[in-house]
Amino acid sequence: MTPAAAPRRRRRVGVLGATGTVGQEFVRLLADHPWFELVAVAASERSAGKPYAEAVRWLGESALPPSIASKTVVACDPAAVDAEIVFSALDSSVAGEVEGAFAKAGRLVLTNAKNYRMEPDVPLVIAEVNPGHLRLLEVQRKKRGWKGGIVTNGNCSSIVASLALAPLHERFGIDRVFIATLQAVSGAGYPGVPSLDILGNAIPFIKDEEDKIETELCKFLGTMDGDHVRFAPIVASAHANRVPVDRGHTICLSVELHTKADPDAVRRALEEWRGAEAARGLPTAPERALVVTGESDRPQPRRDVKLGGGMTVTVGRIRPDPLFDVRLVAMGDNVVRGAAGASVLNAELLVSCGLVPDT
Amino acid sequence: MTPAAAPRRRRRVGVLGATGTVGQEFVRLLADHPWFELVAVAASERSAGKPYAEAVRWLGESALPPSIASKTVVACDPAAVDAEIVFSALDSSVAGEVEGAFAKAGRLVLTNAKNYRMEPDVPLVIAEVNPGHLRLLEVQRKKRGWKGGIVTNGNCSSIVASLALAPLHERFGIDRVFIATLQAVSGAGYPGVPSLDILGNAIPFIKDEEDKIETELCKFLGTMDGDHVRFAPIVASAHANRVPVDRGHTICLSVELHTKADPDAVRRALEEWRGAEAARGLPTAPERALVVTGESDRPQPRRDVKLGGGMTVTVGRIRPDPLFDVRLVAMGDNVVRGAAGASVLNAELLVSCGLVPDT
Amino acid sequence: MTPAAAPRRRRRVGVLGATGTVGQEFVRLLADHPWFELVAVAASERSAGKPYAEAVRWLGESALPPSIASKTVVACDPAAVDAEIVFSALDSSVAGEVEGAFAKAGRLVLTNAKNYRMEPDVPLVIAEVNPGHLRLLEVQRKKRGWKGGIVTNGNCSSIVASLALAPLHERFGIDRVFIATLQAVSGAGYPGVPSLDILGNAIPFIKDEEDKIETELCKFLGTMDGDHVRFAPIVASAHANRVPVDRGHTICLSVELHTKADPDAVRRALEEWRGAEAARGLPTAPERALVVTGESDRPQPRRDVKLGGGMTVTVGRIRPDPLFDVRLVAMGDNVVRGAAGASVLNAELLVSCGLVPDT
Amino acid sequence: MTPAAAPRRRRRVGVLGATGTVGQEFVRLLADHPWFELVAVAASERSAGKPYAEAVRWLGESALPPSIASKTVVACDPAAVDAEIVFSALDSSVAGEVEGAFAKAGRLVLTNAKNYRMEPDVPLVIAEVNPGHLRLLEVQRKKRGWKGGIVTNGNCSSIVASLALAPLHERFGIDRVFIATLQAVSGAGYPGVPSLDILGNAIPFIKDEEDKIETELCKFLGTMDGDHVRFAPIVASAHANRVPVDRGHTICLSVELHTKADPDAVRRALEEWRGAEAARGLPTAPERALVVTGESDRPQPRRDVKLGGGMTVTVGRIRPDPLFDVRLVAMGDNVVRGAAGASVLNAELLVSCGLVPDT
Repeated sequence: MTPAAAPRRRRRVGVLGATGTVGQEFVRLLADHPWFELVAVAASERSAGKPYAEAVRWLGESALPPSIASKTVVACDPAAVDAEIVFSALDSSVAGEVEGAFAKAGRLVLTNAKNYRMEPDVPLVIAEVNPGHLRLLEVQRKKRGWKGGIVTNGNCSSIVASLALAPLHERFGIDRVFIATLQAVSGAGYPGVPSLDILGNAIPFIKDEEDKIETELCKFLGTMDGDHVRFAPIVASAHANRVPVDRGHTICLSVELHTKADPDAVRRALEEWRGAEAARGLPTAPERALVVTGESDRPQPRRDVKLGGGMTVTVGRIRPDPLFDVRLVAMGDNVVRGAAGASVLNAELLVSCGLVPDT
Repeated sequence: MTPAAAPRRRRRVGVLGATGTVGQEFVRLLADHPWFELVAVAASERSAGKPYAEAVRWLGESALPPSIASKTVVACDPAAVDAEIVFSALDSSVAGEVEGAFAKAGRLVLTNAKNYRMEPDVPLVIAEVNPGHLRLLEVQRKKRGWKGGIVTNGNCSSIVASLALAPLHERFGIDRVFIATLQAVSGAGYPGVPSLDILGNAIPFIKDEEDKIETELCKFLGTMDGDHVRFAPIVASAHANRVPVDRGHTICLSVELHTKADPDAVRRALEEWRGAEAARGLPTAPERALVVTGESDRPQPRRDVKLGGGMTVTVGRIRPDPLFDVRLVAMGDNVVRGAAGASVLNAELLVSCGLVPDT
Repeated sequence: MTPAAAPRRRRRVGVLGATGTVGQEFVRLLADHPWFELVAVAASERSAGKPYAEAVRWLGESALPPSIASKTVVACDPAAVDAEIVFSALDSSVAGEVEGAFAKAGRLVLTNAKNYRMEPDVPLVIAEVNPGHLRLLEVQRKKRGWKGGIVTNGNCSSIVASLALAPLHERFGIDRVFIATLQAVSGAGYPGVPSLDILGNAIPFIKDEEDKIETELCKFLGTMDGDHVRFAPIVASAHANRVPVDRGHTICLSVELHTKADPDAVRRALEEWRGAEAARGLPTAPERALVVTGESDRPQPRRDVKLGGGMTVTVGRIRPDPLFDVRLVAMGDNVVRGAAGASVLNAELLVSCGLVPDT
Repeated sequence: MTPAAAPRRRRRVGVLGATGTVGQEFVRLLADHPWFELVAVAASERSAGKPYAEAVRWLGESALPPSIASKTVVACDPAAVDAEIVFSALDSSVAGEVEGAFAKAGRLVLTNAKNYRMEPDVPLVIAEVNPGHLRLLEVQRKKRGWKGGIVTNGNCSSIVASLALAPLHERFGIDRVFIATLQAVSGAGYPGVPSLDILGNAIPFIKDEEDKIETELCKFLGTMDGDHVRFAPIVASAHANRVPVDRGHTICLSVELHTKADPDAVRRALEEWRGAEAARGLPTAPERALVVTGESDRPQPRRDVKLGGGMTVTVGRIRPDPLFDVRLVAMGDNVVRGAAGASVLNAELLVSCGLVPDT
């Protein structure tokens, strides 16, 4: 894979909501990034003014990057965050207002929050799947009078499911899909799910999750049509479940194809898929965004979640479906591919495509 | 609920495969049973001759019943087991031959093993759902020349799903159903799933499970037609998953009804269902075989599995389905309702219906 | 065991902090109590005024008792709680003031909070171990001018350890003891330990726990000397650990005896111990407060925690200690024996001893 | 750290018992080793003749190294394993005989098995702690007439505890130590601990473990005295517990020092310790064999086990002990530092010291 040409200079970036689980993952991914320089960690009033190491309860398996540990946390205010690009891991209760303020102030906002995802003029992007949707940025800027802009990365389950379905939709078209998830507790943030609720238990409910999966999927797999996205006409039914897994969402899929195909053809489509050319070689892009496993009892979170640095979705158990055409299982890292890594990759794509002015 | 009339005398019963997880549950349920006297615990050659307490690794939360602890384990041989009724928790590798030998020897075999479930002349029964299928016993006896007979209880996930679907099939008819399971490790027996495979993990594969669920469902919900069962014409697609839960299978269902109905009507059908009259008041029958929970995040194994002594299936999250008509979640105890308890209840039903000669 | 004579009338009781994990256990134990009538459930301002079923996130395996579900939660104020006896599961941040107010108002307060435990005039009692310490109530009333009074039940680990050590201290005297705990997450309340912190993990730290264990032990095993408790001269060193267990604290003990004894003698002392006569036959007293298991790998939380309705501590692995005299393991239910059940039993003891005026 | 001088040629090495959990870790560590070339994977008769990828159930988070996947498994026979050095992960039931045969045949055997550990002429070595014990090899060769030899790495808990105690024994002397472990399930191999035994549970028993810890510790920390090791005169009492943790043994220690020292001095001794010079810079040696954490609730397996590639033991919670002098907690990777990594490091040490003839 040819690495994408590095930009002439490292861009100054910041993280909003830097102390939560997704915020920490942004920090980890950006602490030593070849294209970006992490200049600001921003969080709530409660944390502002403290050294990051003190404000955060660092959850990672790897140590808190020392270069970031001593940075003073600043407020989530464009005046306090001197960065061209900001990555947002803000809670949805505040993300709408804060992200808008940054976009208005000329910053490019790459966000994991749900607030703007379904706005018609806001790109909801997986770099390998629908990079062309970034053209919405112009629409957005024009419509809202923003100098900056907002690009969203989607719900963690939506991303994993959409990556697995993208090759099938591209080659055969998808009409209907049944989705059942087994989601890791990290998807709920920190402190998130109390241990008394989930130890040795399964919870067949995650607030608002099913609706997000069913709708974001259609936007990800939609096509640009002039100044808007024509949603993919896929009818989806999702069942969201929480399980006592640390990291990695497992997603069962039954897929009805528009052009009929057997499991072998589906497997080939998945194996041959390389994703959009625009995303190849970017620093955070894995060698393969999708890998098909040949093991009969995989993918599994504990065994496969780290593939591609958490950016690879593993697909397996491709088999006939008695009701639709094919059944399969997809599994991906909900915090990297499903959140922070997705936005970092989107930012790299923006830089690579010249959508971040090199001034 | 009027208790069923007690039989004039307690029947002598035995357990085959008494040392495994399901065998232990049989022992627990039969140790102090009002209608049955547990006279024999049988297991493999390795265990035969030892006191039960020594042969078994007792896994229950309650203590090994003292009356059984000192019994000497006997071989799985009709000559060694002086019982009219035997409950079988044998492994399928030996169940076929051994159970046949007991049936031939005039014993009534209630089995959890899969071997005979799909035989046309063998009843596959949930007492509250299809007690009428027991009429196959006559067919079986005639055809095979057995004085005894075999009655099977079905796969644990099939039973839980079928109980939740029975009221809907009765009232509206079911055409198609998607099924995704989150299954407890106790379903795999002991030692079963190694902890290194399942701690903090999910495994999207259980050998042969999906096929069992898809087919047994249609037999349970089928109707007697002369000397055979006409299978319910339900097309099912199952996704079976193992999760780090001790006990209780959670089952997500998307259901297409033959006669359209909305979620409210579906809820009412579930709430109003009482199951077959023949099963009511039997010692192991719970007050309600199905309970609909009003909690938005239930059923959950840790919270609901003990309802009705493990014989009640809890249903919740009844909501519209974008693809079919209704989505819901069912959860039940895989070892009690899904295995040992199911067969004990079937045996009570047989006694109550006069199908065990009172000689 | 002769049941204790029932009081002439059921006492009116209330629960303070009724919505937390320990509060819920109080409610469960009191909902259908032969001697007590649960007339009031009290909680924070946030919950007051709501039906209990709505204010609580009910965590139990058994259903919320219907008789309590509809009760309106009241404030933690003596004026709002018309009960002679109140059980307190309040957080220590408020327990000091509130419990004092109830005691001043003439109520008998049985509390799980730590605030008063080490006060010289406040009894810290395990009914089977040191019922005589209840005489401190008179001292307390005189000194503080209270008409009511406060009786405390101790830290959950302290109680389990003290029950296991009491027979040894009584018979041989204990000079020194090493203690290492493996504590369940329910000990931290709800929401308590975040799942991201404990799934597949162990945490070798519980705030203030080690100090509580080391000191409360000496008060429990101390003796009344005039108007105060002479602490047992036991030097203890505790290591407290949190593990991914739902319920049941496991406690490793290495014990140096004052009068030397071998493991067999220690085992006999434990097996023969029956606890204080005053506690026998009380409604919440288990048949045996201590049970010695003969299994080589027990006690275990999942297998033994429910013994005696959660009021029995199981002891095992009694073996020589290379450093001191004997090593053993104790395990008990931290929410029942270690919290709510302990105080309910103490209240029964007070009634039985005539310390709750029957006016 | 100056890297140790690389040997002139890579040594041919093999792994005995290559399909188990420790065997897999050997394979992972050796697949791309700068000094060693993994030329043979050996296992039981059942596996011999199959490609390694087929014979093994690969458990690692990283993929099976492709260079090894296709190797044909050979029998555990010196004639079939053409390697100068063999690493043994054999079960103790066969290790004694097989390892002896390899040593007799002139091979250097680095073993994780317990069989030879306590033999007076067999080195039991932690590279950073007691490299000088390798001199026993000469004694061994002379006494047994072996051209090769056996070097053992010790029990996983013994290694972690000994590393934490070594700096204290060196500086102050240790007289007595109380040890309580919380051990991961990976320590029991695969399939090892059944999930039904450990999910949500703790087991206060591991066969033979306590004795190993108490005795190996004294050999590790002993000193060479002529042709034998003079054991450290440390009296230890160990309590071994299994907990639902995947990897990483947590060990609570209460230490009585010969020369009194306070926790600050103990902390400094631990922080300043660098281990034996002979081990520094070896390929598998971590930058620091011991790291002292400043976090109040660490070390924790999930957070700290990967430090130093699994070769670093993390120590924390250094505090006064009411009974002895100091309490602390150590945690290390039981499969890397506690097993395979320990032996690989020992082999590097042997090569580096010229104890593997470079012929």
